[in-house]
Amino acid sequence: MNKIITISREFGSGGRELGRRLAEYLGYAYYDKEVISEIAKNTSLSEQYVQQVTEKNQSLLYPITVAQTFCYYDMYAVHQTQKIFSEQEKVLKQMAEKSNCVIVGRCADYILKDYNPFKIFVYSDKQSKIKRCFNKRAKDGEDITEKKIKKFLKNIDKGRSRFYSLYTGQTWGDKLNYDMCINTSNVVIKDIVPHIGDIFK
Amino acid sequence: MNKIITISREFGSGGRELGRRLAEYLGYAYYDKEVISEIAKNTSLSEQYVQQVTEKNQSLLYPITVAQTFCYYDMYAVHQTQKIFSEQEKVLKQMAEKSNCVIVGRCADYILKDYNPFKIFVYSDKQSKIKRCFNKRAKDGEDITEKKIKKFLKNIDKGRSRFYSLYTGQTWGDKLNYDMCINTSNVVIKDIVPHIGDIFK
Repeated sequence: MNKIITISREFGSGGRELGRRLAEYLGYAYYDKEVISEIAKNTSLSEQYVQQVTEKNQSLLYPITVAQTFCYYDMYAVHQTQKIFSEQEKVLKQMAEKSNCVIVGRCADYILKDYNPFKIFVYSDKQSKIKRCFNKRAKDGEDITEKKIKKFLKNIDKGRSRFYSLYTGQTWGDKLNYDMCINTSNVVIKDIVPHIGDIFK
Repeated sequence: MNKIITISREFGSGGRELGRRLAEYLGYAYYDKEVISEIAKNTSLSEQYVQQVTEKNQSLLYPITVAQTFCYYDMYAVHQTQKIFSEQEKVLKQMAEKSNCVIVGRCADYILKDYNPFKIFVYSDKQSKIKRCFNKRAKDGEDITEKKIKKFLKNIDKGRSRFYSLYTGQTWGDKLNYDMCINTSNVVIKDIVPHIGDIFK
């Protein structure tokens, strides 16, 4: 069976960078946004729409109670969402069967549980997350303020938590769902990658 | 500065074994019950009493409100408890200054924060903890039942949590207080020690 490492992460914790560098260090395949592209290709939906459903707007999935009966906000949207979820499972399993790999996000820890992945959760304190986000966005030339970043942090992690909970029935970030949790507060990601990577050698 | 690794752990998670084997693997000093012995020696209190105060009975520290005034349950006991706490800090700092070391429990992660320790929290799922405890005690020839073990697990971790919170003002087991959290569910401790140990090489 291939070696699968899944990375779940708080926004701004450097989890994506850790995943990418870990894959490079180990010579494993790396999947992150590639999952979105693959789903979009297979479902003929736009990448933007797939990303929105899997990362941002899960409310479409909730039934709304009206006068003691259940109706759906938009049956077409619900159908599309279910189609995307089902495709996501298929795509992740294909990736897991192809080769050793690192997969960031996408509830891969849960979806691939039969493949016995090593599940990592990456987190850090608020100040480190703000600093990391600020530096990255400022470097990319974005006009950003600390206030905006704080809002991002809150909203994005709220979305991730809701999505994970909805999809898996588990609590996002609960230690028990992961094999290892890594605190990246005041840590330079590239410095810790060889240490983490050697666990898998 | 010496390398200090602190291990906090859930009862039955194998954290003590992990700490001991990690110290052996790295050639570091190992401190666990040694802290109790040292405090007892320095305070002329019995090891049993010191252990009780630092592990089991913290209620002596709480002021009791009676008719809008504060009185203490037992001033002598409170004084002894404070003496033990103060000595614990002194002993841990002496150990940290002596050589590289692994320290299990004793709020060392908090007390030694100025020494920049690497803080590990070891945890596992309930079934693994029960199994680990059962096997260990049955091996030691103890007449034990699963029901008794469940009670132990609950009470001991409750005590540790209360002690940690009282002493540090932080939440025991909260990921943010540790650099790394390791899930030992279905894990053979001695098999993971070289992987964890190599992080420090």
